Amino acid sequence: MIIVMEPGIKKELALKVEGEIKKAGLKPVLLAGTERFVIAVIGDERKLDEKVIRAMEGVETTMMVLAPYKLASKENRSSSIVSVNGCRIGGKKLIIMAGPCSLENEQNTLQIARAVKKAGAVMLRGGAFKPRTSPYAFQGLGEEGLKILKNIKAKTGLPVVTEVLDTRRVEMVAKYADIIQIGARNMQNFELLKEVGKTHKPVLLKRGISATIDEFLMSAEYIMSEGNPHVILCERGVRSFDKSTRFMLDISAIPVLKQKTHLPVIVDPSHAAGDRRYVCALARAAIAAGADGLIVEVHPEPKKALSDGDQTLNFPLFNKLMREIKQIAKAVGREI
Amino acid sequence: MIIVMEPGIKKELALKVEGEIKKAGLKPVLLAGTERFVIAVIGDERKLDEKVIRAMEGVETTMMVLAPYKLASKENRSSSIVSVNGCRIGGKKLIIMAGPCSLENEQNTLQIARAVKKAGAVMLRGGAFKPRTSPYAFQGLGEEGLKILKNIKAKTGLPVVTEVLDTRRVEMVAKYADIIQIGARNMQNFELLKEVGKTHKPVLLKRGISATIDEFLMSAEYIMSEGNPHVILCERGVRSFDKSTRFMLDISAIPVLKQKTHLPVIVDPSHAAGDRRYVCALARAAIAAGADGLIVEVHPEPKKALSDGDQTLNFPLFNKLMREIKQIAKAVGREI
Amino acid sequence: MIIVMEPGIKKELALKVEGEIKKAGLKPVLLAGTERFVIAVIGDERKLDEKVIRAMEGVETTMMVLAPYKLASKENRSSSIVSVNGCRIGGKKLIIMAGPCSLENEQNTLQIARAVKKAGAVMLRGGAFKPRTSPYAFQGLGEEGLKILKNIKAKTGLPVVTEVLDTRRVEMVAKYADIIQIGARNMQNFELLKEVGKTHKPVLLKRGISATIDEFLMSAEYIMSEGNPHVILCERGVRSFDKSTRFMLDISAIPVLKQKTHLPVIVDPSHAAGDRRYVCALARAAIAAGADGLIVEVHPEPKKALSDGDQTLNFPLFNKLMREIKQIAKAVGREI
Amino acid sequence: MIIVMEPGIKKELALKVEGEIKKAGLKPVLLAGTERFVIAVIGDERKLDEKVIRAMEGVETTMMVLAPYKLASKENRSSSIVSVNGCRIGGKKLIIMAGPCSLENEQNTLQIARAVKKAGAVMLRGGAFKPRTSPYAFQGLGEEGLKILKNIKAKTGLPVVTEVLDTRRVEMVAKYADIIQIGARNMQNFELLKEVGKTHKPVLLKRGISATIDEFLMSAEYIMSEGNPHVILCERGVRSFDKSTRFMLDISAIPVLKQKTHLPVIVDPSHAAGDRRYVCALARAAIAAGADGLIVEVHPEPKKALSDGDQTLNFPLFNKLMREIKQIAKAVGREI
Repeated sequence: MIIVMEPGIKKELALKVEGEIKKAGLKPVLLAGTERFVIAVIGDERKLDEKVIRAMEGVETTMMVLAPYKLASKENRSSSIVSVNGCRIGGKKLIIMAGPCSLENEQNTLQIARAVKKAGAVMLRGGAFKPRTSPYAFQGLGEEGLKILKNIKAKTGLPVVTEVLDTRRVEMVAKYADIIQIGARNMQNFELLKEVGKTHKPVLLKRGISATIDEFLMSAEYIMSEGNPHVILCERGVRSFDKSTRFMLDISAIPVLKQKTHLPVIVDPSHAAGDRRYVCALARAAIAAGADGLIVEVHPEPKKALSDGDQTLNFPLFNKLMREIKQIAKAVGREI
Repeated sequence: MIIVMEPGIKKELALKVEGEIKKAGLKPVLLAGTERFVIAVIGDERKLDEKVIRAMEGVETTMMVLAPYKLASKENRSSSIVSVNGCRIGGKKLIIMAGPCSLENEQNTLQIARAVKKAGAVMLRGGAFKPRTSPYAFQGLGEEGLKILKNIKAKTGLPVVTEVLDTRRVEMVAKYADIIQIGARNMQNFELLKEVGKTHKPVLLKRGISATIDEFLMSAEYIMSEGNPHVILCERGVRSFDKSTRFMLDISAIPVLKQKTHLPVIVDPSHAAGDRRYVCALARAAIAAGADGLIVEVHPEPKKALSDGDQTLNFPLFNKLMREIKQIAKAVGREI
Repeated sequence: MIIVMEPGIKKELALKVEGEIKKAGLKPVLLAGTERFVIAVIGDERKLDEKVIRAMEGVETTMMVLAPYKLASKENRSSSIVSVNGCRIGGKKLIIMAGPCSLENEQNTLQIARAVKKAGAVMLRGGAFKPRTSPYAFQGLGEEGLKILKNIKAKTGLPVVTEVLDTRRVEMVAKYADIIQIGARNMQNFELLKEVGKTHKPVLLKRGISATIDEFLMSAEYIMSEGNPHVILCERGVRSFDKSTRFMLDISAIPVLKQKTHLPVIVDPSHAAGDRRYVCALARAAIAAGADGLIVEVHPEPKKALSDGDQTLNFPLFNKLMREIKQIAKAVGREI
Repeated sequence: MIIVMEPGIKKELALKVEGEIKKAGLKPVLLAGTERFVIAVIGDERKLDEKVIRAMEGVETTMMVLAPYKLASKENRSSSIVSVNGCRIGGKKLIIMAGPCSLENEQNTLQIARAVKKAGAVMLRGGAFKPRTSPYAFQGLGEEGLKILKNIKAKTGLPVVTEVLDTRRVEMVAKYADIIQIGARNMQNFELLKEVGKTHKPVLLKRGISATIDEFLMSAEYIMSEGNPHVILCERGVRSFDKSTRFMLDISAIPVLKQKTHLPVIVDPSHAAGDRRYVCALARAAIAAGADGLIVEVHPEPKKALSDGDQTLNFPLFNKLMREIKQIAKAVGREI
C-alpha cells in the first residue's frame, strides 16, 4: 500500500501512520517529497484495512499494490478448470450452456434440451426461481422446476445450471443442480455467496450490473474462502447511459479477467443484448475475445416464453449461432 | 402501453399484437402511420407483460404509459408518513438518524447515542450484520450487536435502525429493530424484500448503486405488496465514472421521488461521499432539495471505527452538521 | 411521435397539443385512456420539435417513433461504401489503418508505415494536431506533421488519416489528408462537423466518450447534411465506472449501428483499452462482431512514443494482431 | 508519482525506470517489496509524462501524487474572485444569471431581462450561437443575437454571458460579451479554450457531461495557461444510466471543487434537470452545498421558446426560485 499524506501537515501525523503499519507487523518506508510525505508499506498489505488508514488524520489517499483477493488471483495459479459431469470449463473446448430463461413445463423443456444438445450445447440452463423486477411478474416454478431439470437431465444426459436466490434454498438447489448460478443482482449478497461456498458445488457467478472487476473477483473470493474453488465467472453486461441494448457487454472484461484471475470466464450475450437481433454478434465477439463458453437463452417460441422473450433465440437462430461460433472457435484455436 | 412496430411489416403482425392485447382484456387502437404501425393500449396496461409484447414478431419497441408500480405510486395517494415509536417520518419535522457504521461494544455505542441525541438526532443507526466487499473484513457482531442496540434503546429512548442481510435473520432482526434496513446491495434481493414485507415493521430501503428510480420503486412495491406499507426510501449515491467521491449523490432523486411516490425519502450523505470532508455539504443539499431526513455515520474516533472510518463524522463535526441543517430546515419550512 | 399527457388534466390541454401538431402539417390522433390522454402523430414527426411539445402544459413525456436522422438512417439505404484512393471501406475486405498516435519525424514515420504495410495495413494513421488533456503535454507537430504524411504517402502509397481540431485548420488538413478524422472530444463540435461536411473529403467520425448511438448518428447527419456522404463511424470505447481499461469498448455498438445506419463502422481498440495487453483481444472481438475495419496505434518503441505509449503496439505485437484477425475475418466471411 | 512494477520482473527493468526519472531531473526511491518493486519519485512529478512511464516495460501502474493542474489548484491560492462590471463572482454575494436559452428578438429579451433583474438576477444569459444535437434544429441568431445583448445591456445595465462555439468567432463574441461561455460539449475543445484564454475576458466554463473533476480543472488550466485567470466553473449535470432527469446534477462536485481549486463555482440547474418541475429543488441544493451562484433559463412562455422549453422557468416560477434561494443563502451565510 502507498499512503499519500496531505500537503503541509506535521511530520507527527505521518509518524502515527507509520506506527499503525508497524502494529500490523509490516514495514513502513517514509518518503519526504518536496510538498508531501508519502509512506510505502513493505509486506502483505492485505493485513491493513485500507479504510482505517484513509480515516487517519492527515491521510489524503491510498493505493493498494497487491490485489485484494488471494485465492482468485492469477498470482496464486495460472489457470484452473472447473469439471462438471465430465465437462471441463476453462479448457480448450468451449462450453455452451443453453435453455429457456424460465422453466415452464417438462415437455417443452425436453424439446429445448434436445434441440440445443443437437446443435452442440453441453449443458442445460433454466430458471426455477426467477428474480423479477416486478412483484407481479411470474416468479418461477420453484422446486417443481428443479424436478423438471432432474428429469430432463436423466433423459438427455445434459448437466443443468440453475439459479438460487435465497440462503434457505441453497441446500435444495444444490441437490438438483450441477452448477448453482448466482445472478447479477445477488453478486454482493454475501450471505448467499458464503452458503454456496459451503456446498462445494460448481458455482456460476454473474457479474453485478455495476460491479468493478475487483468487486467481481472479491465476490468469487467469498465463495472460495469457504473452501469451494469451483467458481466460473460470467460477464453479462453492465449498466450504461446508452439504451440501445439492455446492458452494455463489457467485452474487455474477458482479457482483463484472464490477466487477473485463473478462474474460467464465460459470457451471457442474451441478457447483455436484451434483443435477439444482437445476440449472435455478441456471442461471436465473446469467443473471439477469449471467453471459455457462453450461456444463451433459447425457446421454441420466444414470444410465448414466460420471461425475457425479447432476447431469446428460437431454434433456427440458435443453430445459426452455433455454426458461427464454431468458425470463431477454430480461428482462436479453440473447439466446440 | 404504446407499441411501435418495425417499418414495412405486414399488417398481419400488427393484428397479432392486437389479438394479444384483447386476450388480456384491454382495448387496442391501431394507428397506421406513414412508415409504420403504432398500437396504443387503452386500459390498465400493467395486465400486459411488456417483455412478452416486445418479443412478438415485428415489434420494434414499447413504451409504458402508467407507472409499473401501483402501491408506491403518487397516483395512489399524495403522501404518507411512517411512524416509528412516536417519530413521524415524512412530516414537517426532519428525522435525523445517526450512529456508528458497525456496532463495536455497548459502552462506545452508549457514548455515541448520547452524543447524537444531545445534538438532535432522534434515532440510532448501527450495523450488527455488515455486508463487506472482502470476506476478510470485519463482518459485524451479529446478534450480540442487536442486544447492544436493545440495551442502548432502553437507556436513551432512541429507536434503532439496523440492517438485515439474510432471509434467515429477518425474524431475529425484526425482534430488536424499530426500522429494518435493506442495504443498497440487497435492493433487488427479492426474497429478502418479501420477507421484510411480511414483518410489517418499518423498512428503510436503500437505493441500489445503479438502480433507476423505477427499479427503486418496484423494490418498494415488493415490500408493500406483502402488506407492509411502512417503507422509507433512502438515496445514498450511485456509481459514476468520477472517483472524487465514493458514489455520486443523486440529488435530483429527491424531487423526482417526491413527484412519483407518496413514500418518505431520506438521504445518506456518508456513504455517498465516502469522505467526511464532504458530508456536511451533501447533508445541507439534501435537506434543501426536500429530503425528509438523514442517516449519518458518527463515531467518537473515526480512525478507530471498525468500518467506514473515512466517511464517519466525529462529535464536533456532527454537531456542526446539525447546526447547519437546522438553518436549512428553517429556510425550507421544515424543523428538526 | 407519441405524446403522453399527465393524468387528470383537462381535455383542453390535449386539444392545444393537437393544435400544435396540426400547425406543423401533421395529423394528431387523440386517444382517451382510462387515466390519461395519449396523442399519436401521423406523418413525418421530424417536422415537430420534441422539446417544444414537451414544454407544453400538461405534457408528461414524448416518444419519437422515427429516427431523428434521415441521411444516416438505414431506412434511407441498406449499406454504403466509402472509397479512399481505391480502398473501399464497408465492403467485404476489412480496412486496417495503423500508425503512431502522434507524428514525430519523417524517418520514424516511414519505418512505421513500411512495417504496418508489410503486415497488411492499407492506410496510415498519425496525428499532427493532438488534443491533449493537459496544456503542458506535447501538442503535435502541426503542418510539419502533415507534410511528413504527404511524403510518406508518396513513398509508400498508403493513404493517410489525420485529425483536425479547429475550424480554421480544416482547409489545411483537407489538403493533405485522405480521410479527415474528427476525434471523440469533438463529436459534438458542430461547427467543425459542418466545416468538414463542406470539404466532401471522407471523414472518420469517432464516437464521443458518452455519446448515445442516436447522438453519434446525429453528428454523422451534421456532416452529411452539408452534402458530404463519405462518413465512416468509429467506436472507440465509452466512459464507465470501471477503471480496468481506459474506456469500455461498446462492442454492441457494432451490431446496433449496422441495424440503424448504412454507414461503415470501424473500431479503435487502442484508445478503448488504453493498455497494449488488451488490444489484440478487442481487435478480434470487433471483427467478430461485424466491424468493417480497425484503426490501431503502432510504434517501434512504444515507451518512447510522444503520446499514448501505454496502449501502442510494437511491430511484433502488430504482426500478431494481423495474423489473429486474418483468422477471425475468414471465420466471419470477410478478408484482409 | 508512485510507480508500481509488475510482480516477478527483473531488477533491471526497475533500474531503467529509475534512469528515466533521473533524466527528468527528479529523484527516484526504489522500494523492494515482498512481491514487487515500487518506485517513488521525489520532486515535481509534473515534469514526467505519466503515459511514457506507463508504457515502459515492467510497469504495472502509476499514481500521481500532485494535482496535474497548477494554476487552478488550491495549492496555488485559497480562493479567487472574478469581477465582471462590478459583480464579484466568488464572494459572499451569490451571483444569479438568468435569461432565455436562445435569444429570439430584442423585445422579448428586454421583457425577460427586466423581469429577472427585478427578481434579483444580476446578469443576463442568452445564446446567440446554439449547439444543437440536430442539424435541422434552430441554430441561433448569430451576430444579430449579440447585438440584441448589447442593446439590452445598455437599457438594463445587466452584464451579459453568451456562448462561443468556434475559434473563428471568439473575437466577435468577446466584443459583445461580459462573460464568454464555453459549453459542456466544448469543454475539451482545446483550441477554443486557448483562444478564449487569449482574450483575457472572464470565461464561464461548463463541465463536460462525462468529464471527471480533474479533466474539468485541466480545461480551466488551458484557459489560465494562456494568461487568463478569470475562470468561473459551472457544474451542469453529468450523464448517467437514469433517465428521470436529463442529466444527473453532481452536487458533490461543489464541495470537491471547493477543496481542489480556488476558482468560483456556479451551477446550472436547468440543463441538469431538463424538466422545470425539478429546477427549484436543484437550485436550492446547489446554494446549500456551497455554490457561488446559478445560471437559470427563463422565458415568459416556455412552450414557445425556440429551444429547451421543457426546462425553462416562466416568470412566476423564477420569482419563486429567487424567494427560495434567498432563504437558503441566509441559512449558509451568503446573500443575494
